[in-house]
Amino acid sequence: MFLAKVFVTLKPTVNDPQGLTVLGALKTLGFESVASVRLGKYLEVQVNESERSQAEAQVSEMCRKLLANPVIEEFSYQLEELASV
Amino acid sequence: MFLAKVFVTLKPTVNDPQGLTVLGALKTLGFESVASVRLGKYLEVQVNESERSQAEAQVSEMCRKLLANPVIEEFSYQLEELASV
Repeated sequence: MFLAKVFVTLKPTVNDPQGLTVLGALKTLGFESVASVRLGKYLEVQVNESERSQAEAQVSEMCRKLLANPVIEEFSYQLEELASV
Repeated sequence: MFLAKVFVTLKPTVNDPQGLTVLGALKTLGFESVASVRLGKYLEVQVNESERSQAEAQVSEMCRKLLANPVIEEFSYQLEELASV
């Protein structure tokens, strides 16, 4: 059993209106030192595979097929082995 | 200048319908080995402070005041120093 921590972020060149809104809200709250905010997704996916290489292949394919939009987003992930029950 | 990588996740006891939807979609796509999916937010916040302790205090306060809903969510963050321009 593996736990994949998946990060999906907008490519640096893509506009992030949601991030700009959060930036504005933080400024309004008095956080003057905030320079920029980018918003992304964070997923924790448990994969029931015994081999790390298989789990990694699965997670990478999930990201490409469903979790990230390759036109505007990029992804990365960390894989942790969970103690089997 | 510091870059804070902020992770906001639902508390383990809170229902995650969005995660269940993604789980269903992954199963439909043929990823039979996926056991669970939890969805959260990932934010990259640049803070214009020279001291790490000040940057950390700011980020922690941001999370408590705006970025996470303390009733149902928990947060963590990593702080990286950026080369000053």
